[in-house]
Amino acid sequence: MSTTISIERPILTKDELLVAWQGHRKLTRRVIEIFPEKDLFNFSIGGMRPFAELCREIIAVAAGSMQQIVTGNIRPLEECMPEVQEKADILESWDQTTDIINTSWSQIQPERFREEISLFGAYNMSVIGIIQYAIDNEIHHRGQGYVYLRALGIEPPFFWERF
Amino acid sequence: MSTTISIERPILTKDELLVAWQGHRKLTRRVIEIFPEKDLFNFSIGGMRPFAELCREIIAVAAGSMQQIVTGNIRPLEECMPEVQEKADILESWDQTTDIINTSWSQIQPERFREEISLFGAYNMSVIGIIQYAIDNEIHHRGQGYVYLRALGIEPPFFWERF
Repeated sequence: MSTTISIERPILTKDELLVAWQGHRKLTRRVIEIFPEKDLFNFSIGGMRPFAELCREIIAVAAGSMQQIVTGNIRPLEECMPEVQEKADILESWDQTTDIINTSWSQIQPERFREEISLFGAYNMSVIGIIQYAIDNEIHHRGQGYVYLRALGIEPPFFWERF
Repeated sequence: MSTTISIERPILTKDELLVAWQGHRKLTRRVIEIFPEKDLFNFSIGGMRPFAELCREIIAVAAGSMQQIVTGNIRPLEECMPEVQEKADILESWDQTTDIINTSWSQIQPERFREEISLFGAYNMSVIGIIQYAIDNEIHHRGQGYVYLRALGIEPPFFWERF
Protein backbone atom coordinates (compact mmCIF):
# COMPACT_ATOMS: atom_id res chain seq x y z
CA MET A 1 0.00 0.00 0.00
CA SER A 2 1.36 3.39 -0.86
CA THR A 3 0.23 6.83 0.20
CA THR A 4 0.63 9.87 -1.99
CA ILE A 5 1.04 13.15 -0.21
CA SER A 6 0.49 16.21 -2.35
CA ILE A 7 2.47 19.21 -1.18
CA GLU A 8 2.21 22.59 -2.84
CA ARG A 9 5.67 24.06 -2.94
CA PRO A 10 5.55 27.43 -1.14
CA ILE A 11 5.45 30.30 -3.64
CA LEU A 12 7.13 32.50 -1.03
CA THR A 13 8.88 31.47 2.16
CA LYS A 14 8.92 33.35 5.45
CA ASP A 15 12.59 34.25 4.93
CA GLU A 16 11.90 35.57 1.42
CA LEU A 17 9.07 37.77 2.72
CA LEU A 18 11.46 39.29 5.28
CA VAL A 19 14.00 40.05 2.55
CA ALA A 20 11.27 41.71 0.43
CA TRP A 21 10.08 43.83 3.38
CA GLN A 22 13.55 44.93 4.48
CA GLY A 23 14.37 45.68 0.83
CA HIS A 24 11.43 48.08 0.68
CA ARG A 25 12.52 49.59 4.00
CA LYS A 26 16.00 50.26 2.63
CA LEU A 27 14.45 52.19 -0.26
CA THR A 28 12.18 54.19 2.06
CA ARG A 29 15.23 55.02 4.21
CA ARG A 30 16.89 56.50 1.11
CA VAL A 31 13.78 58.64 0.52
CA ILE A 32 13.96 59.95 4.11
CA GLU A 33 17.67 60.71 3.69
CA ILE A 34 17.20 62.67 0.46
CA PHE A 35 14.46 64.94 1.90
CA PRO A 36 15.63 68.42 2.90
CA GLU A 37 15.36 68.69 6.70
CA LYS A 38 12.67 71.38 6.79
CA ASP A 39 10.59 69.93 3.94
CA LEU A 40 10.51 66.57 5.67
CA PHE A 41 8.53 68.18 8.49
CA ASN A 42 6.70 70.99 6.71
CA PHE A 43 6.13 70.30 3.02
CA SER A 44 2.80 68.85 1.96
CA ILE A 45 0.34 68.83 -0.96
CA GLY A 46 -3.44 69.10 -0.84
CA GLY A 47 -3.67 69.16 2.96
CA MET A 48 -1.89 65.81 3.35
CA ARG A 49 0.52 65.03 6.16
CA PRO A 50 4.22 65.92 5.73
CA PHE A 51 6.48 62.95 4.95
CA ALA A 52 7.83 62.89 8.55
CA GLU A 53 4.29 62.14 9.77
CA LEU A 54 3.86 59.39 7.18
CA CYS A 55 7.15 57.90 8.41
CA ARG A 56 5.97 57.99 12.03
CA GLU A 57 2.96 55.93 10.93
CA ILE A 58 5.08 53.48 8.91
CA ILE A 59 7.40 52.98 11.91
CA ALA A 60 4.49 52.56 14.34
CA VAL A 61 2.76 49.98 12.13
CA ALA A 62 5.96 47.98 11.62
CA ALA A 63 7.46 48.06 15.11
CA GLY A 64 4.14 48.10 16.96
CA SER A 65 2.67 45.13 15.10
CA MET A 66 5.84 43.02 15.37
CA GLN A 67 6.05 43.69 19.12
CA GLN A 68 2.38 42.84 19.64
CA ILE A 69 2.64 39.64 17.59
CA VAL A 70 5.65 38.46 19.62
CA THR A 71 4.68 39.61 23.12
CA GLY A 72 0.88 39.63 22.96
CA ASN A 73 0.87 43.06 24.63
CA ILE A 74 -1.67 45.39 23.04
CA ARG A 75 -0.83 49.10 22.67
CA PRO A 76 -2.85 51.60 20.63
CA LEU A 77 -1.24 52.69 17.34
CA GLU A 78 -0.81 56.26 18.60
CA GLU A 79 1.37 55.05 21.47
CA CYS A 80 3.66 53.24 19.03
CA MET A 81 4.49 56.45 17.14
CA PRO A 82 8.02 57.68 17.83
CA GLU A 83 8.71 61.21 19.08
CA VAL A 84 10.81 62.88 16.42
CA GLN A 85 12.21 66.41 16.23
CA GLU A 86 14.53 66.10 13.25
CA LYS A 87 15.56 63.80 10.42
CA ALA A 88 18.21 62.10 12.56
CA ASP A 89 15.50 61.02 15.02
CA ILE A 90 13.47 59.42 12.23
CA LEU A 91 16.49 57.58 10.88
CA GLU A 92 17.41 56.36 14.37
CA SER A 93 13.88 55.10 14.97
CA TRP A 94 13.90 53.57 11.48
CA ASP A 95 17.05 51.58 12.25
CA GLN A 96 15.72 50.46 15.63
CA THR A 97 12.63 49.20 13.78
CA THR A 98 14.85 47.25 11.38
CA ASP A 99 16.30 45.40 14.38
CA ILE A 100 12.86 44.90 15.97
CA ILE A 101 11.55 43.31 12.75
CA ASN A 102 14.58 41.03 12.36
CA THR A 103 14.52 39.92 16.00
CA SER A 104 10.76 39.37 16.00
CA TRP A 105 10.82 37.46 12.74
CA SER A 106 12.81 34.56 14.14
CA GLN A 107 10.31 34.29 17.01
CA ILE A 108 7.22 34.02 14.80
CA GLN A 109 6.65 30.41 13.83
CA PRO A 110 5.29 29.86 10.28
CA GLU A 111 2.10 28.28 11.65
CA ARG A 112 1.27 31.58 13.39
CA PHE A 113 0.91 33.49 10.08
CA ARG A 114 -2.80 32.58 9.88
CA GLU A 115 -3.49 33.41 13.53
CA GLU A 116 -5.89 36.33 14.00
CA ILE A 117 -5.05 39.03 16.50
CA SER A 118 -6.61 42.36 17.45
CA LEU A 119 -3.91 44.65 16.10
CA PHE A 120 -3.51 47.75 18.28
CA GLY A 121 -6.68 46.57 20.04
CA ALA A 122 -8.64 47.82 17.04
CA TYR A 123 -8.21 45.70 13.90
CA ASN A 124 -8.84 41.96 13.68
CA MET A 125 -6.27 40.69 11.22
CA SER A 126 -4.18 37.61 10.54
CA VAL A 127 -0.44 37.85 11.08
CA ILE A 128 0.23 37.50 7.33
CA GLY A 129 -2.46 40.13 6.67
CA ILE A 130 -0.76 42.52 9.11
CA ILE A 131 2.63 42.06 7.46
CA GLN A 132 1.12 42.57 3.98
CA TYR A 133 -0.63 45.69 5.25
CA ALA A 134 2.59 47.06 6.78
CA ILE A 135 4.49 46.57 3.50
CA ASP A 136 1.68 47.86 1.24
CA ASN A 137 1.04 50.90 3.45
CA GLU A 138 4.74 51.77 3.38
CA ILE A 139 4.89 51.50 -0.44
CA HIS A 140 1.72 53.65 -0.68
CA HIS A 141 3.08 56.45 1.51
CA ARG A 142 6.57 56.26 0.02
CA GLY A 143 5.00 56.76 -3.42
CA GLN A 144 3.44 59.92 -2.01
CA GLY A 145 6.87 60.98 -0.74
CA TYR A 146 8.13 60.60 -4.33
CA VAL A 147 5.54 63.17 -5.48
CA TYR A 148 6.58 65.56 -2.69
CA LEU A 149 10.22 65.22 -3.79
CA ARG A 150 9.35 65.79 -7.47
CA ALA A 151 7.29 68.86 -6.51
CA LEU A 152 10.39 70.11 -4.66
CA GLY A 153 12.50 69.55 -7.78
CA ILE A 154 14.38 66.61 -6.22
CA GLU A 155 14.90 63.31 -8.05
CA PRO A 156 13.84 60.34 -5.89
CA PRO A 157 15.85 57.08 -5.82
CA PHE A 158 14.99 54.37 -8.34
CA PHE A 159 12.07 52.16 -7.30
CA TRP A 160 14.24 49.06 -7.54
CA GLU A 161 16.97 50.27 -5.13
CA ARG A 162 16.20 47.73 -2.43
CA PHE A 163 19.79 46.90 -1.43
CA MET B 1 11.93 2.59 11.04
CA SER B 2 10.10 5.86 10.82
CA THR B 3 10.80 8.88 8.69
CA THR B 4 10.00 12.38 9.77
CA ILE B 5 9.26 14.88 7.04
CA SER B 6 9.38 18.49 8.10
CA ILE B 7 7.09 20.70 6.05
CA GLU B 8 6.89 24.46 6.55
CA ARG B 9 3.29 25.45 6.23
CA PRO B 10 3.01 28.04 3.44
CA ILE B 11 2.70 31.53 4.87
CA LEU B 12 0.80 32.54 1.73
CA THR B 13 -0.75 30.32 -0.91
CA LYS B 14 -0.97 31.00 -4.62
CA ASP B 15 -4.72 31.56 -4.35
CA GLU B 16 -4.28 34.01 -1.47
CA LEU B 17 -1.75 36.00 -3.48
CA LEU B 18 -4.26 36.30 -6.36
CA VAL B 19 -6.93 37.58 -3.96
CA ALA B 20 -4.49 40.16 -2.56
CA TRP B 21 -3.52 41.34 -6.06
CA GLN B 22 -7.07 41.57 -7.38
CA GLY B 23 -8.06 43.37 -4.17
CA HIS B 24 -5.45 46.03 -4.87
CA ARG B 25 -6.64 46.22 -8.46
CA LYS B 26 -10.23 46.86 -7.31
CA LEU B 27 -9.00 49.81 -5.25
CA THR B 28 -6.96 51.21 -8.14
CA ARG B 29 -10.03 50.90 -10.38
CA ARG B 30 -11.93 53.09 -7.91
CA VAL B 31 -9.15 55.68 -8.11
CA ILE B 32 -9.41 55.72 -11.92
CA GLU B 33 -13.20 56.10 -11.70
CA ILE B 34 -13.04 59.03 -9.29
CA PHE B 35 -10.59 61.04 -11.46
CA PRO B 36 -12.17 63.83 -13.51
CA GLU B 37 -11.84 62.89 -17.20
CA LYS B 38 -9.52 65.72 -18.22
CA ASP B 39 -7.34 65.56 -15.10
CA LEU B 40 -6.80 61.84 -15.63
CA PHE B 41 -4.97 62.68 -18.85
CA ASN B 42 -3.57 66.14 -18.14
CA PHE B 43 -2.98 66.76 -14.44
CA SER B 44 0.48 66.17 -13.03
CA ILE B 45 2.84 67.41 -10.33
CA GLY B 46 6.56 68.13 -10.62
CA GLY B 47 6.87 66.97 -14.22
CA MET B 48 5.55 63.48 -13.46
CA ARG B 49 3.30 61.50 -15.81
CA PRO B 50 -0.48 62.02 -15.60
CA PHE B 51 -2.37 59.20 -13.86
CA ALA B 52 -3.61 57.81 -17.20
CA GLU B 53 0.01 57.16 -18.19
CA LEU B 54 0.74 55.48 -14.86
CA CYS B 55 -2.31 53.26 -15.47
CA ARG B 56 -1.06 52.32 -18.94
CA GLU B 57 2.17 51.14 -17.30
CA ILE B 58 0.32 49.24 -14.54
CA ILE B 59 -1.84 47.49 -17.17
CA ALA B 60 1.14 46.67 -19.38
CA VAL B 61 3.14 45.19 -16.49
CA ALA B 62 0.20 43.08 -15.29
CA ALA B 63 -1.22 41.83 -18.58
CA GLY B 64 2.11 41.68 -20.41
CA SER B 65 3.89 39.71 -17.71
CA MET B 66 1.04 37.23 -17.23
CA GLN B 67 0.83 36.60 -20.98
CA GLN B 68 4.59 36.10 -21.28
CA ILE B 69 4.70 33.74 -18.29
CA VAL B 70 1.91 31.60 -19.77
CA THR B 71 2.80 31.67 -23.48
CA GLY B 72 6.56 32.22 -23.40
CA ASN B 73 6.16 34.90 -26.08
CA ILE B 74 8.35 37.93 -25.41
CA ARG B 75 7.03 41.40 -26.24
CA PRO B 76 8.68 44.66 -25.19
CA LEU B 77 6.88 46.53 -22.39
CA GLU B 78 6.04 49.42 -24.73
CA GLU B 79 4.07 47.08 -27.01
CA CYS B 80 1.98 45.89 -24.06
CA MET B 81 0.70 49.40 -23.29
CA PRO B 82 -2.95 49.89 -24.26
CA GLU B 83 -4.03 52.69 -26.58
CA VAL B 84 -6.39 54.86 -24.57
CA GLN B 85 -8.23 58.05 -25.52
CA GLU B 86 -10.57 58.44 -22.57
CA LYS B 87 -11.35 57.06 -19.11
CA ALA B 88 -13.72 54.43 -20.51
CA ASP B 89 -10.84 52.97 -22.55
CA ILE B 90 -8.68 52.66 -19.44
CA LEU B 91 -11.47 50.97 -17.50
CA GLU B 92 -12.15 48.55 -20.36
CA SER B 93 -8.48 47.64 -20.59
CA TRP B 94 -8.38 47.35 -16.80
CA ASP B 95 -11.23 44.82 -16.80
CA GLN B 96 -9.69 42.83 -19.66
CA THR B 97 -6.51 42.65 -17.57
CA THR B 98 -8.52 41.33 -14.63
CA ASP B 99 -9.64 38.43 -16.84
CA ILE B 100 -6.15 37.88 -18.24
CA ILE B 101 -4.71 37.62 -14.71
CA ASN B 102 -7.43 35.21 -13.54
CA THR B 103 -7.15 33.00 -16.61
CA SER B 104 -3.36 32.98 -16.53
CA TRP B 105 -3.22 32.24 -12.81
CA SER B 106 -4.79 28.80 -13.17
CA GLN B 107 -2.22 27.96 -15.84
CA ILE B 108 0.83 28.82 -13.73
CA GLN B 109 1.84 25.82 -11.65
CA PRO B 110 3.19 26.62 -8.15
CA GLU B 111 6.58 25.12 -8.99
CA ARG B 112 7.02 27.73 -11.73
CA PHE B 113 7.07 30.63 -9.24
CA ARG B 114 10.84 30.35 -8.84
CA GLU B 115 11.50 30.02 -12.57
CA GLU B 116 13.52 32.91 -14.02
CA ILE B 117 12.38 34.52 -17.24
CA SER B 118 13.53 37.53 -19.24
CA LEU B 119 10.52 39.77 -18.67
CA PHE B 120 9.76 41.91 -21.72
CA GLY B 121 13.10 40.63 -23.07
CA ALA B 122 14.81 43.04 -20.69
CA TYR B 123 14.59 42.02 -17.02
CA ASN B 124 15.70 38.66 -15.61
CA MET B 125 13.25 37.95 -12.81
CA SER B 126 11.58 35.01 -11.11
CA VAL B 127 7.84 34.58 -11.63
CA ILE B 128 7.15 35.40 -7.95
CA GLY B 129 9.48 38.41 -8.24
CA ILE B 130 7.53 39.63 -11.28
CA ILE B 131 4.20 39.31 -9.50
CA GLN B 132 5.54 41.11 -6.42
CA TYR B 133 6.91 43.85 -8.67
CA ALA B 134 3.57 44.22 -10.48
CA ILE B 135 1.68 44.60 -7.19
CA ASP B 136 4.25 46.88 -5.54
CA ASN B 137 4.55 49.10 -8.62
CA GLU B 138 0.76 49.47 -8.76
CA ILE B 139 0.57 50.45 -5.06
CA HIS B 140 3.43 52.94 -5.61
CA HIS B 141 1.77 54.67 -8.57
CA ARG B 142 -1.70 54.54 -7.02
CA GLY B 143 -0.27 56.33 -3.96
CA GLN B 144 0.89 59.03 -6.37
CA GLY B 145 -2.62 59.17 -7.83
CA TYR B 146 -3.90 59.82 -4.29
CA VAL B 147 -1.68 62.93 -4.10
CA TYR B 148 -2.96 64.13 -7.49
CA LEU B 149 -6.55 63.70 -6.26
CA ARG B 150 -5.83 65.55 -2.98
CA ALA B 151 -4.16 68.38 -4.93
CA LEU B 152 -7.36 68.55 -7.03
CA GLY B 153 -9.45 68.77 -3.85
CA ILE B 154 -10.89 65.27 -4.32
CA GLU B 155 -11.03 62.71 -1.50
CA PRO B 156 -9.57 59.35 -2.60
CA PRO B 157 -11.14 56.02 -1.56
CA PHE B 158 -10.00 54.42 1.70
CA PHE B 159 -6.79 52.38 1.36
CA TRP B 160 -8.56 49.27 2.65
CA GLU B 161 -11.36 49.27 0.03
CA ARG B 162 -10.21 46.09 -1.72
CA PHE B 163 -13.63 44.54 -2.32
